[in-house]
Amino acid sequence: MSAHGAGRLIGVGVGPGDPELITLKAIRVLAAADVVAHFAKAGNASHARVIAASHLRAQAVELALLYPVTTELPKCSNDYRDALRGFYEQAAGAIAAHLEAGRTVAVICEGDPLFYGSYMHLHARLAPRFPVEIVPGITGMSGCWSAAGTPIAQGDDVFTVLPATLPEDELARRFSETNAAVVMKVGRHLPKVRRALKTSGRLPRAIYVERGTMSDAKLVPLAAKPDDDAPYFAIVLVPGWEERP
Amino acid sequence: MSAHGAGRLIGVGVGPGDPELITLKAIRVLAAADVVAHFAKAGNASHARVIAASHLRAQAVELALLYPVTTELPKCSNDYRDALRGFYEQAAGAIAAHLEAGRTVAVICEGDPLFYGSYMHLHARLAPRFPVEIVPGITGMSGCWSAAGTPIAQGDDVFTVLPATLPEDELARRFSETNAAVVMKVGRHLPKVRRALKTSGRLPRAIYVERGTMSDAKLVPLAAKPDDDAPYFAIVLVPGWEERP
Repeated sequence: MSAHGAGRLIGVGVGPGDPELITLKAIRVLAAADVVAHFAKAGNASHARVIAASHLRAQAVELALLYPVTTELPKCSNDYRDALRGFYEQAAGAIAAHLEAGRTVAVICEGDPLFYGSYMHLHARLAPRFPVEIVPGITGMSGCWSAAGTPIAQGDDVFTVLPATLPEDELARRFSETNAAVVMKVGRHLPKVRRALKTSGRLPRAIYVERGTMSDAKLVPLAAKPDDDAPYFAIVLVPGWEERP
Repeated sequence: MSAHGAGRLIGVGVGPGDPELITLKAIRVLAAADVVAHFAKAGNASHARVIAASHLRAQAVELALLYPVTTELPKCSNDYRDALRGFYEQAAGAIAAHLEAGRTVAVICEGDPLFYGSYMHLHARLAPRFPVEIVPGITGMSGCWSAAGTPIAQGDDVFTVLPATLPEDELARRFSETNAAVVMKVGRHLPKVRRALKTSGRLPRAIYVERGTMSDAKLVPLAAKPDDDAPYFAIVLVPGWEERP
């Protein structure tokens, strides 16, 4: 624990799921943190907490940041946004109290902290007030194309990450205009993503991936995946590098 | 060394530059590899070799894959392409000889092996013939936005990686149509990239980064960077997440 002044906030990426894909830097930072915080849904284990488990100090204070239950609220509603904003304010406040007391707070994050991570909501609120450090992590998408053994982009390829929530015609247009793509948060949007890939002629190379770096990973050509039951975090890879040897 | 059958090829990402940003998996794989191969320019130290140095076995056979000197050839010429293709064929052949002898060959790669990496040229030639494993690594761009402490993409943002070689009007159009972007291989294209960002209204948030995860990193608002001397591997970050709190 720091003797004087404000503590330090550290956003620590712990990688995509395989506990061996954590870095030496993340391990060193976790071994020295006074407080280790993680996001989780009430009643669920945090993936980041599971990945980092063997590296936490026995003496560290653990701070679970539990998302509010918002299943009854539509995701585009103001009530949903307000509930989340209030939650992030409260979480940032809880961390700020530790920082003001001079403690080092590590927030462990699945993947990379600043790439589509919840940590960013804390960072935006706390970085203006406290010293902050980021330990990058291997992203979920890197874990997926590595598990698939699929070169994703090369040379002067344009590479695009697309949320599956986009309208079908926009997805199709963007597939046509990029060399390589990753579609995130596929879930119930799978039939639409497939149609957009077909329209743009990119379906034959597309790969469907679930739990990319876990031992029960599922990797299949998207053309062979039924439209039945894609989980929210499933992704689709559209490899570039058309002129490969 | 395997007693029977073909050896295994392993593409090992060693991260963006900071030797602490290597993973436990990369370290384990390097501790067991019979042969460690790396790409380098003749007369230059390989960055990947420097990053991984302390994890190589004393007994490992080292295989330096030295790029041919092609400075006299225009990069768009057939002669240049032929020289590179011949080099990759030769490199793949040298590795195949070790694999056929039953040796495990780790090819160490800066960043992530399947994301714009030279390793992919070996992978495409050897994966159809030999067992292959990929150890993902932290990308150079993750290292850069982490060093900058800049959230890059959030929620339903579209994120695009663009080579600076694209024509100015295409860059400007793509900057207008994405929430977040990373421009790679900036080098002598810096003035053009800046003009395209200005045209698309994205210049005020753009950040120029050199040697993002090294101790002598240079991070400045692009608006404050002169058009004088950007190195080939400099990148520009265009952060998304417009509605951040």
